[in-house]
Amino acid sequence: MRCASDIEARDVEEMYINIDPIQVGGRLTADAMKAVIAYADGYSVCDNCRSPFRLDYIQKPPIAQFHADLARWLNMDAVRVIPGARRGFQAVASSLVERGDPVILTSLAHYTEFLAIEEAGGIPREIPKDDSNRITADAAAERIEEVTREFSRTPPLLFIDHVDYQYGNVHDVKGIIKTAHQYDIPALVNGAYTVGIMPVDGKALGADFLVGSGHKSMAAPAPSGVLAAAEEYAGKVFRTTEARGDLTGRTFGIKEVEMMGCTLMGVTVVGMMASFPHVQERVNHWETEVAHSQAVVDGLLSIEGTRVLSEYPRRHTLTRIDTRESFDRVAQQHKKRGYFLSNDLKKRGVIGVIPGSTRVWKFNTFGLTEKQIRHLSEAFIAIARENGLSIV
Amino acid sequence: MRCASDIEARDVEEMYINIDPIQVGGRLTADAMKAVIAYADGYSVCDNCRSPFRLDYIQKPPIAQFHADLARWLNMDAVRVIPGARRGFQAVASSLVERGDPVILTSLAHYTEFLAIEEAGGIPREIPKDDSNRITADAAAERIEEVTREFSRTPPLLFIDHVDYQYGNVHDVKGIIKTAHQYDIPALVNGAYTVGIMPVDGKALGADFLVGSGHKSMAAPAPSGVLAAAEEYAGKVFRTTEARGDLTGRTFGIKEVEMMGCTLMGVTVVGMMASFPHVQERVNHWETEVAHSQAVVDGLLSIEGTRVLSEYPRRHTLTRIDTRESFDRVAQQHKKRGYFLSNDLKKRGVIGVIPGSTRVWKFNTFGLTEKQIRHLSEAFIAIARENGLSIV
Repeated sequence: MRCASDIEARDVEEMYINIDPIQVGGRLTADAMKAVIAYADGYSVCDNCRSPFRLDYIQKPPIAQFHADLARWLNMDAVRVIPGARRGFQAVASSLVERGDPVILTSLAHYTEFLAIEEAGGIPREIPKDDSNRITADAAAERIEEVTREFSRTPPLLFIDHVDYQYGNVHDVKGIIKTAHQYDIPALVNGAYTVGIMPVDGKALGADFLVGSGHKSMAAPAPSGVLAAAEEYAGKVFRTTEARGDLTGRTFGIKEVEMMGCTLMGVTVVGMMASFPHVQERVNHWETEVAHSQAVVDGLLSIEGTRVLSEYPRRHTLTRIDTRESFDRVAQQHKKRGYFLSNDLKKRGVIGVIPGSTRVWKFNTFGLTEKQIRHLSEAFIAIARENGLSIV
Repeated sequence: MRCASDIEARDVEEMYINIDPIQVGGRLTADAMKAVIAYADGYSVCDNCRSPFRLDYIQKPPIAQFHADLARWLNMDAVRVIPGARRGFQAVASSLVERGDPVILTSLAHYTEFLAIEEAGGIPREIPKDDSNRITADAAAERIEEVTREFSRTPPLLFIDHVDYQYGNVHDVKGIIKTAHQYDIPALVNGAYTVGIMPVDGKALGADFLVGSGHKSMAAPAPSGVLAAAEEYAGKVFRTTEARGDLTGRTFGIKEVEMMGCTLMGVTVVGMMASFPHVQERVNHWETEVAHSQAVVDGLLSIEGTRVLSEYPRRHTLTRIDTRESFDRVAQQHKKRGYFLSNDLKKRGVIGVIPGSTRVWKFNTFGLTEKQIRHLSEAFIAIARENGLSIV
């Protein structure tokens, strides 16, 4: 029997080109790795916690400064670090949504948005996607009107994924938020696939809330993330406790209800901080990342029968591909069935495609070098060729 | 200006004897440190995530096995890992407490319990402590009756801290829960200062919920923790989502609402797992830990004017001490004022007492060696002697 302490050292990132859809933006930087080693102990950032006792006030390590820098970089008024983007959705839904309220999200919304709404007692209503798998401002307006009629009240919150997890499509967040604001609905931008990956300007988008993921896109350990708010809503989502011990008279004034006090007391926040300068820098090279993504997609499209389901040309590094008429045709004859693809990729040093997948699958090229991009593209083509598919 | 990426390497645990009240149980084991280095990247445990897609089903690393082992060890029916004990309080309060419900906790309850109740819309009601700073079953019964009369309904939940954060006193959890059950009130045991530190048997205590902290007491990175539930309530707090995309028909069946899907996707859960065999072993030496604590307290009590505010003899390693008539008398004359104590301790290689504190303060001796305990005790006495206090 496998024992719970029997943990093999992980060498995926050292040994392979990893194109896992969710992992590529969360690979640590060397500086983050150093910081992780220094701050791995439990409450490691609390050595110099002094009144007021709250994580975002700690000066050493410079967590307070990090919060200020992060707000400026995202162009938002207030930020807090959180244990994963989902905990940001939870905090906002808990603050704005009452039982029975309709809440708008999209047909491409991440499941954690549904969970946040459900926990708050809200009722999710999806904006439809169009034929090219995009969410438009027009569709948002139509759905808002429909839902408002259905519930005889305006939804208190709208979620919009800046880039969705299914297609990696970049949606018209600015237009959708403008629409939401016309109905006085605050908007939360799910930036799990954008903050730390590509340039994001909260105010330019009109975001009332902007959520990012440390472990998905900010080169940080899990669970980590950021919840940013515009001034109008910061006091609401970051409200301090009003609780009072009825016998002792104890109060806990500076602690924030939705944050549950402090959030990331050690390795996670320090990992985010140490990667932050690199993350700020890397978003400036987004055009190169997109070009890399495009190159691999074009490589795949040169394999007969292969289709790209994501928007084309690519505007993001996460792509959904349809190989039912190419690799899956091979799989039906291959002695390894659908596993031939992940096997053959692994032999060529590529990992991150779910073993067995040959029909519709996703990959993410973020962070790969020019040379790795070329290797990846050639690997797909070589595998196709070896298995009798034509290259066009 | 300090820059957010200007993170000095932390060497507190290597260079000093740390007696910080909250940090001592969260120091990593060597195995955890190795695991942290291998799994520091964001979603590092998701390499082999296969259907059903949820953290506690992952076989490699053996997270599923860890969950089973943890449940057996705590003698509870179901467990999940969570980003800190507070997130366990939040999950339970959100599941059981409706707006306006009274919720019982104690005069020694941690502030995060208040926050969890507040977020759920509940109204906290404290059980008083007795003259020796203990919570008793009788006081619990009396308060439950009083609160039930006040609200004309039974509180849906009672929180009891196994060992409280203020005095480090061990309370009659078993008796209090027995009382709660007589009124049909489920009880949550806050084991942040016990799970991973001393033996804890959930069923023997009668716990409906048992919460532990990874970064406080299980030698794990932050934020981490465990929420365990008895069978009767597991289905409630770990309920799976019923959300459905109204247009797409999407469902997310296996994801648990209060867990927000997956919780600790990388370094945190692996840190807990790698430390787990050591944590299981160390609780067996609890008597030695308590004897160490007692020895240091006795050393302090030999300094004239010093009083212990925690229960005596000691039954835990966290102690609240009153030195207003000893070290604080020195502080009033000392050129460094109250800082002399932390300064002098640091010169002797001891850290973790809040700088400036000489009146009422706390320390925690957990995990120190015999030799370190002797050194610590002698350090206090030597500092007292040097500053003209009598040793009795």
